Amino acid sequence: MEQRVSLITLGVSDLAGAKGFYEALGWRGQEVEETVFFQAGGLGVVLWHEDKLADDAQLTRRTTDGGFRGVTLAHNVRSRDEVDAIVEAARAAGATVTRAPAETFYGGYAGYFTDPDGHAWEVAHNPGFPIADDGTITIPDMGGS
Amino acid sequence: MEQRVSLITLGVSDLAGAKGFYEALGWRGQEVEETVFFQAGGLGVVLWHEDKLADDAQLTRRTTDGGFRGVTLAHNVRSRDEVDAIVEAARAAGATVTRAPAETFYGGYAGYFTDPDGHAWEVAHNPGFPIADDGTITIPDMGGS
Repeated sequence: MEQRVSLITLGVSDLAGAKGFYEALGWRGQEVEETVFFQAGGLGVVLWHEDKLADDAQLTRRTTDGGFRGVTLAHNVRSRDEVDAIVEAARAAGATVTRAPAETFYGGYAGYFTDPDGHAWEVAHNPGFPIADDGTITIPDMGGS
Repeated sequence: MEQRVSLITLGVSDLAGAKGFYEALGWRGQEVEETVFFQAGGLGVVLWHEDKLADDAQLTRRTTDGGFRGVTLAHNVRSRDEVDAIVEAARAAGATVTRAPAETFYGGYAGYFTDPDGHAWEVAHNPGFPIADDGTITIPDMGGS
């Protein structure tokens, strides 16, 4: 199995509402057969009804709010000002800001919001993780094992 | 907000176990301060303790198994044989195969497994989504709106 991700599919309860949220953030995609596809760099971010997604994976449908979903997505940017601007844009688009932008323990600056379906996004300026012109990031050698 | 994802962080309960699972699938990363970073194309896949991740995002920690987490990751490959091989490798590494590889409604072939923390991966051969030599995918014009 190669080290790559082709698609991230976010389960949603209201496709039009979820699509509208991402469009309000400036994203543009295609809606086909009650599914929305956004090209996001070399992968796709997909919106699909949560129950259909659970059924497709043959997983138990979510029935209770068990708290944190266990996954976060990060959107790294090139400056602290961009963090502030994007978190404010998300709030204006209907996101819940769970953590206002602030210093991070790793020497960066980040905030978190959740989209209308509770999916958590971190918006971060991390000076240690270079961002290429095309938006891809490279994890530096951190001397880990 | 540009259309890109920088990091996908998967909350885990046992970092060594989760790292070992992905290593058994052939992934190689760096462990630094109880966090594992895998370079995955132009983004990073990160393993971090679920409660630390929830606290970092200032979200309610997960206390119950509410069923489906609401997110799936897809790993698209170039043939049906690769789907079968990867799903079998995942099973051997300790994954739960929730859907054995089979035909899909969109004319492809796919299976799903969950990793030791319940994160769902689809392994798919989708002839309609071209995969470049570097593994990136391009969502074709599907005539959507």
